[in-house]
Amino acid sequence: MSTLTEIAKDKLLYEGKAKRVYATTNPTLIIQEFKDDATAFNAEKRGKIAGKGIINNELSSFFFAYLTDFGIPTHFVSKISEREMLCKKLEIIKIEVVMRNIVAGSLAKRYGLKEGDELRHPVTEFYLKNDALGDPMLNDDHASALSLATYEELEKLRQLASKINAILQELFWQKRLKLVDFKLEFGRYTSPEGKVEILLGDEISPDTCRLWDADTNEKLDKDRFRFDLGNVEQAYQEVRRRVLG
Amino acid sequence: MSTLTEIAKDKLLYEGKAKRVYATTNPTLIIQEFKDDATAFNAEKRGKIAGKGIINNELSSFFFAYLTDFGIPTHFVSKISEREMLCKKLEIIKIEVVMRNIVAGSLAKRYGLKEGDELRHPVTEFYLKNDALGDPMLNDDHASALSLATYEELEKLRQLASKINAILQELFWQKRLKLVDFKLEFGRYTSPEGKVEILLGDEISPDTCRLWDADTNEKLDKDRFRFDLGNVEQAYQEVRRRVLG
Repeated sequence: MSTLTEIAKDKLLYEGKAKRVYATTNPTLIIQEFKDDATAFNAEKRGKIAGKGIINNELSSFFFAYLTDFGIPTHFVSKISEREMLCKKLEIIKIEVVMRNIVAGSLAKRYGLKEGDELRHPVTEFYLKNDALGDPMLNDDHASALSLATYEELEKLRQLASKINAILQELFWQKRLKLVDFKLEFGRYTSPEGKVEILLGDEISPDTCRLWDADTNEKLDKDRFRFDLGNVEQAYQEVRRRVLG
Repeated sequence: MSTLTEIAKDKLLYEGKAKRVYATTNPTLIIQEFKDDATAFNAEKRGKIAGKGIINNELSSFFFAYLTDFGIPTHFVSKISEREMLCKKLEIIKIEVVMRNIVAGSLAKRYGLKEGDELRHPVTEFYLKNDALGDPMLNDDHASALSLATYEELEKLRQLASKINAILQELFWQKRLKLVDFKLEFGRYTSPEGKVEILLGDEISPDTCRLWDADTNEKLDKDRFRFDLGNVEQAYQEVRRRVLG
């Protein structure tokens, strides 16, 4: 990209569990750098997955570009290095949007459902992004009353998440992977012209998706780290291989 | 009511924590009998509140009749004795609908909010009626995916709960009581002609509402039992006195 020559990495804005976010010399752009660090269970479990940052940057860049082709607005600008992605700067909406197609994880536990059961239809969930509170689930009324987002924005999140789910589920299926569930984050982007738009942010990777082998239901995602299932690096590499060939 | 002479109490259908439900000789009607038993924290705490059943029957009968005057469809037919209420038989929707106006209880804890703070607008919550699972919160997608209710029914629950909240909040305010939050249950009633309608069921009482004195914020509801605040019976009597005079 020609604009790349005009922008440079600036100060660290934020260090998260799996990424660092840097300002750039362009106030509307940031760089997100993917780390190998992994956490689970609200950061009670910590570790590293060798090479994860590189794979997640590759996969996320691919998925964002793929979604863009389907008309989904995302923060992705370009992959600029092995571990770095140039993105539009968002005011993050403090809601984690989870889409579920198959019962797993907290859904199974919360409602006494059987892991692996297909849901009658996809389920969207909103969670408050708040580690100290353990990311509690919330509904539209909570989100509005807590001034996290307007009802109109929440409806937009739901629409975008639902479309993204349909697009990714089909894509993964072609790669012989079941998209069990995944987490999305969105934010408000203010263009240089002052227009505000909701864009998909964060990342899409085996850190944020549950992916099972289509034939064997073998887990090929962060659950291998969460539950000490072994072959963690290999699972990430396998997803990379299937998706990017 | 003239129909009363035609119906008689029949076998016990169900014994809940605070009520017994009996069949009647009319298959579309049941009798609910209010007990003095009280439970809290998913029945981990148990006890009795002397005279509660009598007061809750009086208050619930009054509230149901009052709501009927405002066009809210309820299961209430008539108060037939000190502790008994004749009701239309419902197929209960296994969702507890909670309406909140002021922060208290699990809302404060879940989102780190301050008890007593007024919400920007009323908040509706759905919980799965399932003691074994601890009545987990759910959203419309969960309720539909679990076949608890259709999206159309959920919207109807939300509309009814919101109207009921407006009506009761105003009524309690006149009685110098703040309606902090309350729980509703709804069910499907099939008329003798085969028409299915959603009606408000269960009860409305200091067991199911948080009610605070409008001036002092003194708790006048089951929280006095939950948290061993003393003067439990007196609180129920005080609500009865203010509402029924």
